[in-house]
Amino acid sequence: MSEPAYDLWYWPSIQGRGEFVRLFMAAADIAYCDRARSGDAQDLVEDMEQRTESGDFAPYAPPYLVERESGFAIAQVAHILAWLTDKHQLGTGDAATDLHLVQLQLTITDIVAEVHDTHHPVAGGLYYDDQKDAASKAAEAFREERIPKYLDHFEAALAVKAGPFMSGTNWSHVDTSLFQLVEGLRYAFPRRMTALAADYPALISCHDAVAQIDGVAKYVASQRRIAFNEDGIFRHYEELDDE
Amino acid sequence: MSEPAYDLWYWPSIQGRGEFVRLFMAAADIAYCDRARSGDAQDLVEDMEQRTESGDFAPYAPPYLVERESGFAIAQVAHILAWLTDKHQLGTGDAATDLHLVQLQLTITDIVAEVHDTHHPVAGGLYYDDQKDAASKAAEAFREERIPKYLDHFEAALAVKAGPFMSGTNWSHVDTSLFQLVEGLRYAFPRRMTALAADYPALISCHDAVAQIDGVAKYVASQRRIAFNEDGIFRHYEELDDE
Repeated sequence: MSEPAYDLWYWPSIQGRGEFVRLFMAAADIAYCDRARSGDAQDLVEDMEQRTESGDFAPYAPPYLVERESGFAIAQVAHILAWLTDKHQLGTGDAATDLHLVQLQLTITDIVAEVHDTHHPVAGGLYYDDQKDAASKAAEAFREERIPKYLDHFEAALAVKAGPFMSGTNWSHVDTSLFQLVEGLRYAFPRRMTALAADYPALISCHDAVAQIDGVAKYVASQRRIAFNEDGIFRHYEELDDE
Repeated sequence: MSEPAYDLWYWPSIQGRGEFVRLFMAAADIAYCDRARSGDAQDLVEDMEQRTESGDFAPYAPPYLVERESGFAIAQVAHILAWLTDKHQLGTGDAATDLHLVQLQLTITDIVAEVHDTHHPVAGGLYYDDQKDAASKAAEAFREERIPKYLDHFEAALAVKAGPFMSGTNWSHVDTSLFQLVEGLRYAFPRRMTALAADYPALISCHDAVAQIDGVAKYVASQRRIAFNEDGIFRHYEELDDE
């Protein structure tokens, strides 16, 4: 096996935003060295500091992907996925559709930030226990208003083509990210997602079709996929979930 | 004067996210019809509904830009700005730099969302008065931790090239957006921004240089630039500001 062309940098102990990059690379069978699995958080912090001090453009936050040959580093999930799609010629061949896919990926970025804010509505730097009252209200609004608004949008977009994927029979970065979004929402809000499941048949079909992509199935079954936990973006707190 | 090639759709009563698109188009002297100024909110709601029902990919939320000739619609500020940059050949000519600029624009997107959450930490659908306690704590954390973290990042990035702009002597979408970020933060948190000003000379220089771009100067002095207000993203609530 040849040396991987990329290093992926992210926090070691969570799936987090890094997981959207991992799932896409697993589906596309792109080899990379996962620096979150081969090192610890201190390695990441030092790499970030070194990049900031290097005098070149540095990532604001992980995840970021480094192309070994050129040393080029790229951050922001939607940006990484669009770049990999171009580089590995995984686009649809239709420029307008590819642009719409990036737009949808950026909308996934938005809901992922909102998921995080359900358990940390006041400040990311404070403990959950110090913002539980606000989190309770934030999670209620998220469950009742935001989840349906976003999922309605993705369901309508999935109806544009015949499916099971967003652009038809071939998967894209949007599909691997929708898979992770559904996985994460089911983990964090199992009662709410069970209650809503019947409203989103196309989204569930998309999720299930992504689960069967060879590289995704192998990755998800492997030790490399760490479990969701209460340090990540999608967290299960019993008191934040309801039908 | 020829017919504009674009329609920009956004909420009529605020600068909001639409303003980042307006400032870029003003700087680049790209003609467009501002549908937020020629119509009301109901027109926007109806256009959004019609797009969702059309069976094509629709925006999740405004702002979105429509290319009149093709009917192609694109949403998400960073995505619109990257697309316009390519289309109007306003890139730097260096692919890696252009990608870094998009990455920086996406980081501006992140801080803009956090600014909004200072006055609406619990839920966008609730009134400010119903989340004032949480907002007070959220704004404190934003002022003390998040503003410096983001502005340190932009200041370091501005040091990569000689300036005054992010990629050197030519402005890009990142510069027009940093101008608006500084304008908005000064409006919302005047005491905090005054206290911090000396720490960010490159950012302030960039802001001041953008203000002198011919199209920006004309736009900002015109009636088309509506004032910041307490329905927008950057809001001034006396109780949320402090040194």
